Amino acid sequence: VTSHLEQEIFEQPVALERQLELGRADAERIAAAIRARSPQAIVLAARGSSDNAARYAQYVFAVHNRLAVALAAPAVFTLYEAPPRLSSMLVLGISQSGRSPDIVAVIEEGRRQGAFTVALTNDCNSPLAQTANACLPLYSGEERAIAATKTYTSELLALAMLSTALDGDSERWAELYGVPLAVRSTLERNTGAAAAAAHFRGIQQFLVLGRGYNFATAHEVSLKLKETAYVVAEPYSSADFRHGPSAMLDQDLPVVLVAPKGKAFADVADLVSLCRRRRAEVVAISNDAALLGQATVPLPIPEPLPEWLSPIVAVVPGQLFATALAHAKGIDPDHPRGLRKVTETR
Amino acid sequence: VTSHLEQEIFEQPVALERQLELGRADAERIAAAIRARSPQAIVLAARGSSDNAARYAQYVFAVHNRLAVALAAPAVFTLYEAPPRLSSMLVLGISQSGRSPDIVAVIEEGRRQGAFTVALTNDCNSPLAQTANACLPLYSGEERAIAATKTYTSELLALAMLSTALDGDSERWAELYGVPLAVRSTLERNTGAAAAAAHFRGIQQFLVLGRGYNFATAHEVSLKLKETAYVVAEPYSSADFRHGPSAMLDQDLPVVLVAPKGKAFADVADLVSLCRRRRAEVVAISNDAALLGQATVPLPIPEPLPEWLSPIVAVVPGQLFATALAHAKGIDPDHPRGLRKVTETR
Repeated sequence: VTSHLEQEIFEQPVALERQLELGRADAERIAAAIRARSPQAIVLAARGSSDNAARYAQYVFAVHNRLAVALAAPAVFTLYEAPPRLSSMLVLGISQSGRSPDIVAVIEEGRRQGAFTVALTNDCNSPLAQTANACLPLYSGEERAIAATKTYTSELLALAMLSTALDGDSERWAELYGVPLAVRSTLERNTGAAAAAAHFRGIQQFLVLGRGYNFATAHEVSLKLKETAYVVAEPYSSADFRHGPSAMLDQDLPVVLVAPKGKAFADVADLVSLCRRRRAEVVAISNDAALLGQATVPLPIPEPLPEWLSPIVAVVPGQLFATALAHAKGIDPDHPRGLRKVTETR
Repeated sequence: VTSHLEQEIFEQPVALERQLELGRADAERIAAAIRARSPQAIVLAARGSSDNAARYAQYVFAVHNRLAVALAAPAVFTLYEAPPRLSSMLVLGISQSGRSPDIVAVIEEGRRQGAFTVALTNDCNSPLAQTANACLPLYSGEERAIAATKTYTSELLALAMLSTALDGDSERWAELYGVPLAVRSTLERNTGAAAAAAHFRGIQQFLVLGRGYNFATAHEVSLKLKETAYVVAEPYSSADFRHGPSAMLDQDLPVVLVAPKGKAFADVADLVSLCRRRRAEVVAISNDAALLGQATVPLPIPEPLPEWLSPIVAVVPGQLFATALAHAKGIDPDHPRGLRKVTETR
């Protein structure tokens, strides 16, 4: 383990423990302020990995808090300068650095309209946090690799904690405290990811399929593959995949199935037979022994693991696989071509 | 012109004229019912091409009607059976066939909670339409090709008409009546798409970039490339692209820039220099002469063309290019591998 990226991947169990320990009071305090406002729905603004955390939030807040989540289209605020009505909404901006101007613009407008606004960020002194009514801090420590790993899983955990604080369910708190160990165990089980990745050295493209809570994981694993290993990796919900894109499946297109056990499992795992008919190789991230047995590359995650928390764990083998693929292709994973840590989009 | 797909691409000017003529009264009637309810926001449910129409709706209703739009995650309703609170929302389902069970489930739940629900569909006798409070009909006629073309552009037009009926702006109505001619002119200007596509016969992957209103177009052009020509084509907003995925750009990855003139133009067109530095070939869908001049393959669209309506026009060269690429690769565009016209996802 030498690169910043790998160091940060292996720091995740500790970062998640810190988030649980230090972040619970923040989550409880902000949840109380949100409950006092009774928002009709949530408007979320984010880019890159944080946008994948926002996809996770869509499921968590809908299923557990009955709150519909709209992913803000920042261009509506910045390019078109015609923001929607936000006063009855909770407006939540997610950004590791807290410095993306378009995300700040969404929070600024929400505050101007009198909505309750929250910044989820690694820097509570950032412009995003300074603009919002409240800062929900990440306790990840500085992230030096350009590709986000520990801040992504900490964002997911912070969102899951906020959702739990909103409904005050003690059983869900107990489940949350099991996450760091599940991530640690996943890191230990997947030391073989490196050898597996070498097999795909010559491959230029992947599909990554997930559904429900793990639609976010499919997006984030794709993004890691793209930004560290320079392959074209396309994320799909298994449902959308059946509406057209499945036509492109063939032996030159390996498929990553993100399929932890739970209510979305069957729909994703069912695609393994289609992959076989088209001779597409399958990389499976799962805790189902039968599915792992059918995969070309099994990437195991532990069980028991509640489905609503599985995205925090299931992304980890994807991070390892993408990093290993970068090494196998001779790419320095700490210096993705043409990227900087803070991307200032407007 | 022999395939159903090509016939339907060329039917679009007539289908759009019909939508304007017959659909205006529907749009006015449903707009009056929506205004009477003063919804806080819109929840949209759709899959495949209709989901790309929903992406367009996000911008149109936000910019022109100040309504935030949440794209429903149907799995929340079907797999997790934990729908969000919808009573203060407008719930809109978009489906050509009106027969996708998960989209019907969203409308059903909206109605159960007392929300006003609308079905945008080609079949007002379908389960979706029968479940909703109101049917906003498409007047596209039967669509026989599996890949949606005329129903997609008619969906966009119907959404633009509903938005215009909601704010009753006569200038916007005048702009709407210019759309069929702009589409006709685009079909006439792009007879060279076939020869251009042949050049890419050996290519397995494309990137398709757009922003703002034409983020939807980037998604839909990608989907056409995938389902008809079996290439991996990934859509990106030009802003998200800078947050990571730009690392994968190189000479083996041609880029389609969807860049009609307007407020999003500069952000997308600006990527042409990055493409050149990485030696990626550029296919440009634009009405900007300078950008067309810098492209390997210029696919021109007419001007003047108001940006908010440009997605109905800008998708057309993409449809032609994808069909031509399918022919160049020896694929029958009417029979995509493994797809059927109605996909019943749950």
